[in-house]
Amino acid sequence: MAKKGKNIWRDIQRIHTESPLIHNITNYVVMNATANALLAIGASPVMAHAIEEVEEMVGLAQALVLNIGTLSAAWIQAMVKAGKEARRMKIPVVLDPVGCGATQFRTIAAQELLRETLPAVIRGNASEIRSLLGHGAGAKGVDSRQTAGEAIEDARALSRFSNCVVSVSGPIDLIVKDDAAIQISNGHPIMSKITGMGCTASAMTGAFVAVNPDYFEAAANAMAVMGVAGEIAASRSAGPGSFHMHFIDALSSIEEPDIAQRLKMGNI
Amino acid sequence: MAKKGKNIWRDIQRIHTESPLIHNITNYVVMNATANALLAIGASPVMAHAIEEVEEMVGLAQALVLNIGTLSAAWIQAMVKAGKEARRMKIPVVLDPVGCGATQFRTIAAQELLRETLPAVIRGNASEIRSLLGHGAGAKGVDSRQTAGEAIEDARALSRFSNCVVSVSGPIDLIVKDDAAIQISNGHPIMSKITGMGCTASAMTGAFVAVNPDYFEAAANAMAVMGVAGEIAASRSAGPGSFHMHFIDALSSIEEPDIAQRLKMGNI
Amino acid sequence: MAKKGKNIWRDIQRIHTESPLIHNITNYVVMNATANALLAIGASPVMAHAIEEVEEMVGLAQALVLNIGTLSAAWIQAMVKAGKEARRMKIPVVLDPVGCGATQFRTIAAQELLRETLPAVIRGNASEIRSLLGHGAGAKGVDSRQTAGEAIEDARALSRFSNCVVSVSGPIDLIVKDDAAIQISNGHPIMSKITGMGCTASAMTGAFVAVNPDYFEAAANAMAVMGVAGEIAASRSAGPGSFHMHFIDALSSIEEPDIAQRLKMGNI
Repeated sequence: MAKKGKNIWRDIQRIHTESPLIHNITNYVVMNATANALLAIGASPVMAHAIEEVEEMVGLAQALVLNIGTLSAAWIQAMVKAGKEARRMKIPVVLDPVGCGATQFRTIAAQELLRETLPAVIRGNASEIRSLLGHGAGAKGVDSRQTAGEAIEDARALSRFSNCVVSVSGPIDLIVKDDAAIQISNGHPIMSKITGMGCTASAMTGAFVAVNPDYFEAAANAMAVMGVAGEIAASRSAGPGSFHMHFIDALSSIEEPDIAQRLKMGNI
Repeated sequence: MAKKGKNIWRDIQRIHTESPLIHNITNYVVMNATANALLAIGASPVMAHAIEEVEEMVGLAQALVLNIGTLSAAWIQAMVKAGKEARRMKIPVVLDPVGCGATQFRTIAAQELLRETLPAVIRGNASEIRSLLGHGAGAKGVDSRQTAGEAIEDARALSRFSNCVVSVSGPIDLIVKDDAAIQISNGHPIMSKITGMGCTASAMTGAFVAVNPDYFEAAANAMAVMGVAGEIAASRSAGPGSFHMHFIDALSSIEEPDIAQRLKMGNI
Repeated sequence: MAKKGKNIWRDIQRIHTESPLIHNITNYVVMNATANALLAIGASPVMAHAIEEVEEMVGLAQALVLNIGTLSAAWIQAMVKAGKEARRMKIPVVLDPVGCGATQFRTIAAQELLRETLPAVIRGNASEIRSLLGHGAGAKGVDSRQTAGEAIEDARALSRFSNCVVSVSGPIDLIVKDDAAIQISNGHPIMSKITGMGCTASAMTGAFVAVNPDYFEAAANAMAVMGVAGEIAASRSAGPGSFHMHFIDALSSIEEPDIAQRLKMGNI
């Protein structure tokens, strides 16, 4: 566990040093929040969705984050184009299938993105992961959280099927690659009461895969930083409004001892 | 007035218990703020505007909020489709005709939405309500506030014409249904210096109509909670930046005595 | 310098008194932040991009701000239409060529907007200004900052070529018109760690050109207010999250002595 903490800190330092450009094609609700989170951890965000420029933009980036939170046909088309170019250039893709399962349109779009872009990491909640596999899922908004128990088998199946890392956020986060699995028990319940914390986790995962070619470790490290920063922020907050401010401040000032002291990460 | 306060608290408890899904097709400026306000009061927000999914999404929701703040032809088309499906499924619609009267395009779109979706509640400022009736209105941005005096006759006329509740925000909020009218004197002037407080009021109205089938009462209760939370936040704020943070915190921690002590609601 | 401070304060008082309507066609990431900044300084923001209404909307405004941060073909078309109408009605246009140089699509769009709308002020960072001139530029996200040294010759060339004021933000801001040039050394490094501070500077420039027909002075005054409010906010902040809140509060409460004591503006 001490070793895990060191790897996380090493990745944060790399992000600070390299300031990787993270190309986000994401939803309207969270663009500002995820851009600020990426800046706070030391990365350089760019948001660009025009079909005319996504290939050129992704070519400048060290990672691509695709998020279907407020999808439309035109945006999905741009996401596919950007994702294919990323794949061609071996730039890692993070896919966040927001609300997958809530409507057929979302499920089909998420499955198309999975097939066409071959993401390095899929990051979603348990319900979204389940519906990506083609199972029905009870959709209850996009901010819902589910128990970790049922999630791990779905994550394993999706990881094998799509040959990528699957990162499932919830009260306990699960990061799965084939037979390997990590769980992280950091974080705070208030994180489910702020919009876009899942989307921020996906953007953060983009920053970590941009500097760490071990995508399984990178995905876990990103979730650990989310959880640790969330705990620090929750301890300073009077509610979800102040939480968001403290969360960005915590991301920008996180230190190695914060991680070493708080990290609850283990193999399962 | 004690009774009114009890009904408000009962609605808040219902929102916490039922966590209704509120489907928002709203403007880019306020999406994050309104999602966070809905989460803070205990509801589940979803933002989805694609023509391919709005009917399926609204079928999962307990209320639909339509807001034309950054309208375009494609979004209005999706709003009409979602609104018609909501009407068919008897899911209450809240219409926020942002900037109605400022341009012909907005006025025509707002009137089309009114006609096609038969909203449960129209929530706007006095100028928007007036122009929905076909009267000219001096447009001065979308964050302007007008006096309550002239507003009530327009609200009555619109309520009768469209057979719905009309909720007019301003220094004094008016909620009108046919001959009945409530006024609420809660709130704080700083609320006119933060973008999207009107849009947040509309989203909040969505949460209340989702749990209270008496839409007249629900609309009034939503405005009362906005005003009370606004007063609490203003008392803690150094300006509009800190106000917004405290407003979300206040929404998430509002208690029955806060309402009982502060409520200034009465029939007119 | 005392005189400069007085002109800034005079402009702020005009903004408070006249509450000019600033029409923004801007990017999704910053819409909320720039609307709140405009409200905080006393202006009235409106965001409207539909091709059907931009001409009518800009006719109500005292300034138009065009920002290509999340451009698409349809939005550029609306920007051109709004900009031409503004030009016809002699309403000043501020152009923010976000990310110009990063992709060909952005460079071509920015150059088209420059040509078609004849802006009063172009506000960008040094890399964007350079690429507007047709020089290649190393694109590193849209939040990067460059040294002031190389920037002044580019700004002079662009000002002469396009017959407008060029406002270049960076650790030292440069405002150039033909042979005249002002530098401002206010501000704080943390401002490069919050998304949209450049976009906010452009919106703020819109508020100042709306009340001050000397666009060279207005552009400088806007940057001075950004820098002074940024310094005040930085002194109260624990990180970029709290900075943003304090920045909006500082804008809304800035007083003449704040400017007089902090201003570092001079001719070059």
